[in-house]
Amino acid sequence: MAIILGIDPGSRLTGYGVIRLTGSQVTYLGSGCINVVRSLKGETEPSLADKLKVIHDGVVELIQQFQPTEFAIEQVFMARNPDSALKLGQARGAAIVAAAVAGLPVAEYAARLVKQAVVGTGAADKQQVQHMVMALLKLTKKPQADAADALAVALCHAHMRSQPLSTTRGRK
Amino acid sequence: MAIILGIDPGSRLTGYGVIRLTGSQVTYLGSGCINVVRSLKGETEPSLADKLKVIHDGVVELIQQFQPTEFAIEQVFMARNPDSALKLGQARGAAIVAAAVAGLPVAEYAARLVKQAVVGTGAADKQQVQHMVMALLKLTKKPQADAADALAVALCHAHMRSQPLSTTRGRK
Repeated sequence: MAIILGIDPGSRLTGYGVIRLTGSQVTYLGSGCINVVRSLKGETEPSLADKLKVIHDGVVELIQQFQPTEFAIEQVFMARNPDSALKLGQARGAAIVAAAVAGLPVAEYAARLVKQAVVGTGAADKQQVQHMVMALLKLTKKPQADAADALAVALCHAHMRSQPLSTTRGRK
Repeated sequence: MAIILGIDPGSRLTGYGVIRLTGSQVTYLGSGCINVVRSLKGETEPSLADKLKVIHDGVVELIQQFQPTEFAIEQVFMARNPDSALKLGQARGAAIVAAAVAGLPVAEYAARLVKQAVVGTGAADKQQVQHMVMALLKLTKKPQADAADALAVALCHAHMRSQPLSTTRGRK
């Protein structure tokens, strides 16, 4: 049995999705978003440190709540531009450190591989990912886009960890 | 009295510098580098999570060792390319979260402002920064380049925090 916490980090919204894997059976446990802006709405001018702490503490809370045994995150191959790459990197750093300090194995998967595992094609769009995540986890309500991406990376990990010869598992 | 921990984050080497500020008097307490590669030399293929944990845990140890009251880091305005920006962002995230979780106020300063404060010109080169850091802190040995940059950002913070109308202090 494994409980997998998937994270889709972002400087404003960090999606999360939690599934349980028993044999080849996956069960939905929860999903949602860590909303950095909403969490700091009382602050007049939140600093970068405030924002990163929201992401970090949010992941720490999820780990306490769901007691995951494994952590999965999307690998970033080509960031769009230096400014967004820096912001994404900071959010990723804050989230990954929370998992690493909790002693969870951290697996990274390329976006193409996540789409391939969930939809069957690496070129799937966001709607297709959302749709297949709903179908695979028998959800009655469409998850928010970032939460769906986080569930997708968790599902990808569930799929890949049962493959005998994965070279991507747990390594960059 | 303030104890300032300056950090110059990088995915391979993270420089640190610690100074004590008493009135307008600065005293050198320590400096060096968190060497990610050396820390993980036993591992055959360290993951991103392993690397970020080294940076995070290194900063946590420095906080325990020096008991700083304030934390200063260089602000990144324009990263060179998306790939290095992502790596730098991840390292920054890991370091800043360690300070934020410890409850330290985190101040960010633009590189130009750091050079201006330490050398007197925002266009100073690395050698000039190293030289002035040595002179200001009465060091007998030249600090390693990343350690010198970390000491420079700590010195910049020492200078700026005593200015009454700083808008950059503690805010992005």
